Amino acid sequence: MTGHIQCMPRPSLKEQIVDAAVETLHRKGFNGSSVQDITEAAQAPKGSFYNHFESKEDLAVAALQRYWERGETSREMLRDTQYPPLERLNRYLDHLAGSARKAEFRKGCLIGNMSTEMAGENRPVRARLAALFGAWTEAIESCVREAQADDSVRRDLDPASIAVFLLNSWEGALLRTKVDRNDSALEVFRRATSALLSP
Amino acid sequence: MTGHIQCMPRPSLKEQIVDAAVETLHRKGFNGSSVQDITEAAQAPKGSFYNHFESKEDLAVAALQRYWERGETSREMLRDTQYPPLERLNRYLDHLAGSARKAEFRKGCLIGNMSTEMAGENRPVRARLAALFGAWTEAIESCVREAQADDSVRRDLDPASIAVFLLNSWEGALLRTKVDRNDSALEVFRRATSALLSP
Repeated sequence: MTGHIQCMPRPSLKEQIVDAAVETLHRKGFNGSSVQDITEAAQAPKGSFYNHFESKEDLAVAALQRYWERGETSREMLRDTQYPPLERLNRYLDHLAGSARKAEFRKGCLIGNMSTEMAGENRPVRARLAALFGAWTEAIESCVREAQADDSVRRDLDPASIAVFLLNSWEGALLRTKVDRNDSALEVFRRATSALLSP
Repeated sequence: MTGHIQCMPRPSLKEQIVDAAVETLHRKGFNGSSVQDITEAAQAPKGSFYNHFESKEDLAVAALQRYWERGETSREMLRDTQYPPLERLNRYLDHLAGSARKAEFRKGCLIGNMSTEMAGENRPVRARLAALFGAWTEAIESCVREAQADDSVRRDLDPASIAVFLLNSWEGALLRTKVDRNDSALEVFRRATSALLSP
């Protein structure tokens, strides 16, 4: 019975560790966060970590997935048919900019941060990042396709390329805000991408 | 005399450490590289490190500066008046893409990597990053201004905004190549920015 309990740890502790990892990894990066930093933030005993995760990399994959799931509510804006598609896209981008501003441009995007820090070295993290970028691109692409159909976005670029470009350029703009600590890169992003998308 | 020698270490050893730091930090990141990793790569005694640098952060600032200086030869392409300005810009971007390809998309840009990893935490590194982004933007902006003057780039966006947007979007595209391990993000970047710049 004891063995059974050890193999099936309380789910809530695992959840706490993943939540703490999202926050800690976002703020301090993967190599800047120790397992102890994360278990302390989770108010979990350090020894409990390896009951739940094989490695810090394994936790990083789970934290990326959790971060992505938390973004689902905002991605719903892209599908909110009470607004026309281009307005949905703009509302979504405004929302992302608002989150960056709320964090005083200190944290950037966990997905972008992990891409520069980890993708060169760690295969499971890179695979998760690729999957999330793919899904994120699709969410934007659907909205762009609808906006092309109602003539509010140019049609001489395919919606997948536009979505990839918007997303990558967004990551680049957010990277720059971490250096500048203001939203000027985000404003330039919005001005330039509006000019690009204009039919 | 011995004290004098200790206070004025051989410049070549310091140079070796900075060169090794550029390579090591670029490949493994700031928190992923120890002082020992760097001194070993420099074939320098670990103990010599603190004769030359106050801290690893201090070395990171020097490494960023060295990385920037190494890019001067390629930035000269932006001023090479044997080509018209838009062609200069395209040749420069091709050159950057070639460097990323040569590194098999594993390393990204040291300036971009340090921005996501360090800018949130370390003031001197952030100040250096801001200065380098500023100087890099200016180099691109001059070329864009000339291209607007000869009617090869649209004029309804100011050259500074175009330069900031190109640079940040480039960083975002390069970030994505680290995840994808191929140049599709760079191709999308070129296609979308050509569409944007077109008068």
